[in-house]
Amino acid sequence: MTSTLDRPSSWITREVEPLDDGTLARVDAWWRAANYLSVGQIYLLDNPLLAEPLHRDHVKPRLLGHWGTTPGLNFLYAHLNRVIQERSQSALYVTGPGHGGPGLVANAYLEGTYSEVYTDITTDTEGMRKLFRQFSFPGGIPSHVAPETPGSIHEGGELGYALSHAYGAAFDNPDLLVAAVVGDGEAETGPLATSWHSNKFVDPVADGVVLPILHLNGYKIANPTVLARIPESELLELMRGYGHTPYVVSGGFDGEDPTTVHQRMAEVLDQALNQIAEIKASARAGTLTERPRWPMIILRTPKGWTCPPVIDGKQVEDSWRSHQVPLASARDTDAHLQVLDGWLRSYRPEELFDATGALVAEVASLAPAGELRMSATPHANGGQLLRDLRLPDFRDFAVETASPGATIAEATKVLGQWLSAVVEANPENFRLFGPDETASNRLQAVFDVTDKAWAAEILPADDNLARAGRVMEMLSEHQCQGWLEGYLLTGRHGVFSCYEAFIHIIDSMVNQHAKWLKVTQEIPWRQPLASLNYLLTSHVWRQDHNGFSHQDPGFIDHVVNKKAEIVRVYLPPDANTLLSTYDHVLRSRDYINVVVAGKQPAPTFLSMDDAIAHCARGLGIWEWAGTEERGDSPDVVLGCAGDVPTLETLAAADLLRQNLPDLKVRVVNVVDLMRLQDEREHPHGLSDRDFDTLFTRDKPVIFAYHGYPWLIHRLTYRRAGHSNIHVRGYKEEGTTTTPFDMVMLNDLDRFHLVIDVIDRVPGLGTRAAGLRQQMVDARLRARDYTRQHGEDIPEVRDWVWPDVGETGAADGGPARDQISAHAATGGDNE
Amino acid sequence: MTSTLDRPSSWITREVEPLDDGTLARVDAWWRAANYLSVGQIYLLDNPLLAEPLHRDHVKPRLLGHWGTTPGLNFLYAHLNRVIQERSQSALYVTGPGHGGPGLVANAYLEGTYSEVYTDITTDTEGMRKLFRQFSFPGGIPSHVAPETPGSIHEGGELGYALSHAYGAAFDNPDLLVAAVVGDGEAETGPLATSWHSNKFVDPVADGVVLPILHLNGYKIANPTVLARIPESELLELMRGYGHTPYVVSGGFDGEDPTTVHQRMAEVLDQALNQIAEIKASARAGTLTERPRWPMIILRTPKGWTCPPVIDGKQVEDSWRSHQVPLASARDTDAHLQVLDGWLRSYRPEELFDATGALVAEVASLAPAGELRMSATPHANGGQLLRDLRLPDFRDFAVETASPGATIAEATKVLGQWLSAVVEANPENFRLFGPDETASNRLQAVFDVTDKAWAAEILPADDNLARAGRVMEMLSEHQCQGWLEGYLLTGRHGVFSCYEAFIHIIDSMVNQHAKWLKVTQEIPWRQPLASLNYLLTSHVWRQDHNGFSHQDPGFIDHVVNKKAEIVRVYLPPDANTLLSTYDHVLRSRDYINVVVAGKQPAPTFLSMDDAIAHCARGLGIWEWAGTEERGDSPDVVLGCAGDVPTLETLAAADLLRQNLPDLKVRVVNVVDLMRLQDEREHPHGLSDRDFDTLFTRDKPVIFAYHGYPWLIHRLTYRRAGHSNIHVRGYKEEGTTTTPFDMVMLNDLDRFHLVIDVIDRVPGLGTRAAGLRQQMVDARLRARDYTRQHGEDIPEVRDWVWPDVGETGAADGGPARDQISAHAATGGDNE
Repeated sequence: MTSTLDRPSSWITREVEPLDDGTLARVDAWWRAANYLSVGQIYLLDNPLLAEPLHRDHVKPRLLGHWGTTPGLNFLYAHLNRVIQERSQSALYVTGPGHGGPGLVANAYLEGTYSEVYTDITTDTEGMRKLFRQFSFPGGIPSHVAPETPGSIHEGGELGYALSHAYGAAFDNPDLLVAAVVGDGEAETGPLATSWHSNKFVDPVADGVVLPILHLNGYKIANPTVLARIPESELLELMRGYGHTPYVVSGGFDGEDPTTVHQRMAEVLDQALNQIAEIKASARAGTLTERPRWPMIILRTPKGWTCPPVIDGKQVEDSWRSHQVPLASARDTDAHLQVLDGWLRSYRPEELFDATGALVAEVASLAPAGELRMSATPHANGGQLLRDLRLPDFRDFAVETASPGATIAEATKVLGQWLSAVVEANPENFRLFGPDETASNRLQAVFDVTDKAWAAEILPADDNLARAGRVMEMLSEHQCQGWLEGYLLTGRHGVFSCYEAFIHIIDSMVNQHAKWLKVTQEIPWRQPLASLNYLLTSHVWRQDHNGFSHQDPGFIDHVVNKKAEIVRVYLPPDANTLLSTYDHVLRSRDYINVVVAGKQPAPTFLSMDDAIAHCARGLGIWEWAGTEERGDSPDVVLGCAGDVPTLETLAAADLLRQNLPDLKVRVVNVVDLMRLQDEREHPHGLSDRDFDTLFTRDKPVIFAYHGYPWLIHRLTYRRAGHSNIHVRGYKEEGTTTTPFDMVMLNDLDRFHLVIDVIDRVPGLGTRAAGLRQQMVDARLRARDYTRQHGEDIPEVRDWVWPDVGETGAADGGPARDQISAHAATGGDNE
Repeated sequence: MTSTLDRPSSWITREVEPLDDGTLARVDAWWRAANYLSVGQIYLLDNPLLAEPLHRDHVKPRLLGHWGTTPGLNFLYAHLNRVIQERSQSALYVTGPGHGGPGLVANAYLEGTYSEVYTDITTDTEGMRKLFRQFSFPGGIPSHVAPETPGSIHEGGELGYALSHAYGAAFDNPDLLVAAVVGDGEAETGPLATSWHSNKFVDPVADGVVLPILHLNGYKIANPTVLARIPESELLELMRGYGHTPYVVSGGFDGEDPTTVHQRMAEVLDQALNQIAEIKASARAGTLTERPRWPMIILRTPKGWTCPPVIDGKQVEDSWRSHQVPLASARDTDAHLQVLDGWLRSYRPEELFDATGALVAEVASLAPAGELRMSATPHANGGQLLRDLRLPDFRDFAVETASPGATIAEATKVLGQWLSAVVEANPENFRLFGPDETASNRLQAVFDVTDKAWAAEILPADDNLARAGRVMEMLSEHQCQGWLEGYLLTGRHGVFSCYEAFIHIIDSMVNQHAKWLKVTQEIPWRQPLASLNYLLTSHVWRQDHNGFSHQDPGFIDHVVNKKAEIVRVYLPPDANTLLSTYDHVLRSRDYINVVVAGKQPAPTFLSMDDAIAHCARGLGIWEWAGTEERGDSPDVVLGCAGDVPTLETLAAADLLRQNLPDLKVRVVNVVDLMRLQDEREHPHGLSDRDFDTLFTRDKPVIFAYHGYPWLIHRLTYRRAGHSNIHVRGYKEEGTTTTPFDMVMLNDLDRFHLVIDVIDRVPGLGTRAAGLRQQMVDARLRARDYTRQHGEDIPEVRDWVWPDVGETGAADGGPARDQISAHAATGGDNE
């Protein structure tokens, strides 16, 4: 915990008046200093303060980095510093145009933070030389804003998530101002275009405030931007339509003196912060009735502002030509070298830095103190603020089951009961996110203790909507992911529940987050974050009714390409294993945990104790399901991962037990998919010895898998017995409309698994020819039945693990009846 | 070609006046008929026209489908039919809320189209019975709008792409009206939120017109929608801010008589179409100076309109409870069965269908004729309209090369020259799409013959912007993909060029398109479409300078999970193979072609003739690069796929030739990645015999691959020699900032490949211990150099294939000089 968070609320109003000369000079000098340091990073290897005439050897051989957006980011930083100091306002700076990396590094250096975390980069000439040299240089730092950048939670890679991240940071931080710069290029992306609507999900009392700043510099890489080329009246309507009060600052064009632009910026910033303070005050007083029209700022400046206006006869400032490195040949031509020299000197570095290379005190005094510096805010290094969740004992939510499969439960519904207790115990640092699917995914128990966040109109008939809800639902996977990322990166916890097929919508976002986590683990001052936890339900095998478009288990494949130390994949087969898994993932740090679990009524195979033990191992032999004697070697191994594949595997084991009682069958269930991998490939990987003990080195393994079959081959590629592993999984075969029909279409059904066994166990082909034919017939019979009746054949639908009949059923009555009862109510259909 | 397209332009204005009684009755009757058929599909197995009292056995055992959005879609269909007929207006209906599948099927059936394409579903009682039964029934049709639905180009799966698809359909179809329904749930998605801006990219002269209809029914699965819960004034500002002229129709609430809503809808529709006609006329007359503010319609109706308002005491109509199946227990309880009976009869089917079950003529007369029926428009079955591209001979654009590697070329720049000729030769049915990256990806030659489409403000300094450009650039991968899909689905051709890392943004969209293609191939009346062609450049190995966030080669892995008959992946190693590959993919049909190619100066290894032969085989031995005698068996195979891996492999082969001249090295280059797969797995797959001939069954294979190494293992999993294949590829290792440093970080560099050879060829470890140490030292030297100088060590950077020295270089001077010259200008940095 830090002093920043414990301070009393600081949302204050101040009289709006022009900057006095001293302040104006400080703001302008800060801006010039940041610009100077930015240009220096892009161009200079040496001679950082131009103590000697600029020589071509002082210029980097490869000129990398992006100038175009940088002066605007620096301009805003300087102005924000003024108001932060005047108002003691805790603030976080989120920069959508993260390719303006030099600017953020420059400001962190000016504030002293850079030298605090990288002690080698000192606040003197030698430190400045190193600062310049390391930028986008081998062994140095990336050219974009990155985990290496103090004060950042937002990578400058893929565009579109600035506002989502900003709102995620603001949730549950009632005293935090998040100044979020949206580039006009980024503004064209889909995720950004909808993220403006985040203002309908923010609570003016309990959440912080996002101040969006749309920076119109007019150009992208090679094109003008849409929002810069519509009339201002239209742009204002758009922003009002998004629910904001827009303020406009425009200037710097055609050589306009920055002084006048500073005054306009300062005036607008004070106006906007005063409006925020008024909203905050009325919200806290309970007098706010309408959804507030939060302020936003439109800042229109030239792209590449303050660089040479024209180079080689071509317009550079206020043009897309300043996007990257305006002077490409500074090392090669004297003319360009002179232009660079003049450009650098135009910032008057001699007024900004003293003889030792340190920022002069007058300018340095613009920086706020300590953690109020945006580069030093603990909110940008969320691990510093992270508190463990208070986790209620998941054992108290266990499904009682007298014997394997004896009790039917809806796994995610059971999880929802525990999650509602988690929500209750952690009212300020845990949220659930989902695209309108929390109830559909059967987590509705959480609505017993909280609501869905909703700041837009609420009608009398509405259920579970409130300004202060802990469940975030908007029909945008991008928003859910972006909000959650922002929430995690600022030191909180969360879960994203989503239909499995549509989580691919955020494939590229999870790439970026995985890369962020990977890099932060190598940065000592970055503290560990809570893991990014997915709950993928309404999964591929339960999308028979919604059809082919809703079937895709490939998110697992996608994440498995990321670094092994980041990625975990869990496929709990029942409610108790899901509880145990989720308790584990909510305690974990710095991972991306993908948990796939069903929401439909299904057998509970393991008691809570057995589930805990099974999850701790990650995989294991289910002895009760097999027919080998202890110490035996099996004739065949039935592997399974995923709830539906496990069910089909057990049904196949049952068929084999009944029909080939002397066949020694072993059933191995896998919860933690990464256990299949070699220990040299993944921290969770099994040793070859342990793997061989479970799966044998030479016996056929029929593996029923939740997703695309290839992943199992990939994970077991190095194993001795891998050529004996035969995988059944999802094959993109098209549409059917009952669960078992779909399983059959992909040859993952119990009958086909028995056929696979017969075809692969040496010598069984002849002996079990009759059984094989029975299985073929059973499939035809099942298919005919569904086509006739529109539902699955009862002998399949109502099958339960046979031990139930012997031991009697649990409280809920016989499992068979429970399943039948559900089947009659029709499928789930959201 | 169809009559529809050859008709004279039909954008006409008509006086706006109330519907006469007959028309009003027809519109209302059509709507009731469509609603009746929709409810029938969701609920009924039999007794389609209620000839006998409704019995529980007439009700489906699993009640699936979505009612909530359906009456609104039907309402619009009826009204559009009226104006299509009155104005002879060619029209396409795109329904964002595609889960309203029953409605689209119902209208196609009412128009007769359904019975034309599915002759078994006749226009009588028996046909209606089958129509009802097949809906979301095993062996029947999906519950969402799907390829099976006549008149559709837009799957009802993932939400967000209705407007992008609609605009894609409208481009280059100047007489086409695309009525695009946007659900208020879908409107919350990112892609949809930015797709409103498509109106800045449409040419009022040469393109058709999209009429967006925002259907506010207020609720999603379990929540209200954002746009329904902001004040109407705010919503109107939003739509004006998006550049539209909004028209509002609201009604049907609290039992309001639909008649009055019909009149308001008709009035607004006529007003909107008149405004469109006026814009069209002035555009064609050349008097349109400003960007038109195209009309859009906001239709606010109750969700589930016309279903029972209250069921079991809970509000259903005008509530999220009508989203799916309002009556879940119609088969189980008499009360619900009676409610269903009453609901069905409320549409007065006896007035709509005659004794045979056919639609009565008076109602049927609302349908337009022939291809003007939205369910029968050829635009929705684009293959009917598809014309082959006129492809200029790519050989004329070849890079001359006297010997392998003798000429340096930028592959995508060369391709751009050919593409500019393709653009010129196909001015009406070929477009390029890209998120502000066409020039960055070096395709700028196309701007010699065309412009970027831009209907927003154009300033004097702008380059290559015009209302009628053939290049579509908006900084939204979603828009590019959605536009291109719409363009392809309506029978045209295109290319999407994109940074490799960020193409993951549309992972989920390519899933949906792949599924669409897969299903259409099984539907006889769906004609083949032009393939979806990607050009992924600025690829992983050239993102050293932009850093880790810009590095991801996993899109290939993503698409490879789709059906083999849909997916093709090409990795041309140089400019000539890229030309040959692209000529091939632009001629192909119904595929998703992923082509990864470099934009940096690189050696041209193959002459045009050799390139053509190599691409035709898809892979092959480069005998000139190896050291085995013809007929020999090699000691080691160096496999390679991708331009940078190929370069490193050849450099490794060079090192081996110089240092171990008696080692028999074979170099195999792979262009068509799917050739590696088994012929049983992929149509392009090699037979085992051919594979073994190339790669041997028992010799070590060191395979340098463009992407994540696992894919090569996956593709070669079934091969005899697969355990001898050792793959080097991308490993998510983090950031460096020179090309060779990055290659080294992933152990894909020439020196490491030589080490791999030494470590894996039996007996070589001892004999080549000295060389191995040299390679280790060379890596250290190379790394030290980059850290010292900020660029790659010249011995690596300037390396060229040694034959060049012997044969002399081509026109452009020695390859070495060409590479050095480029290196000095600094890297590419967009």
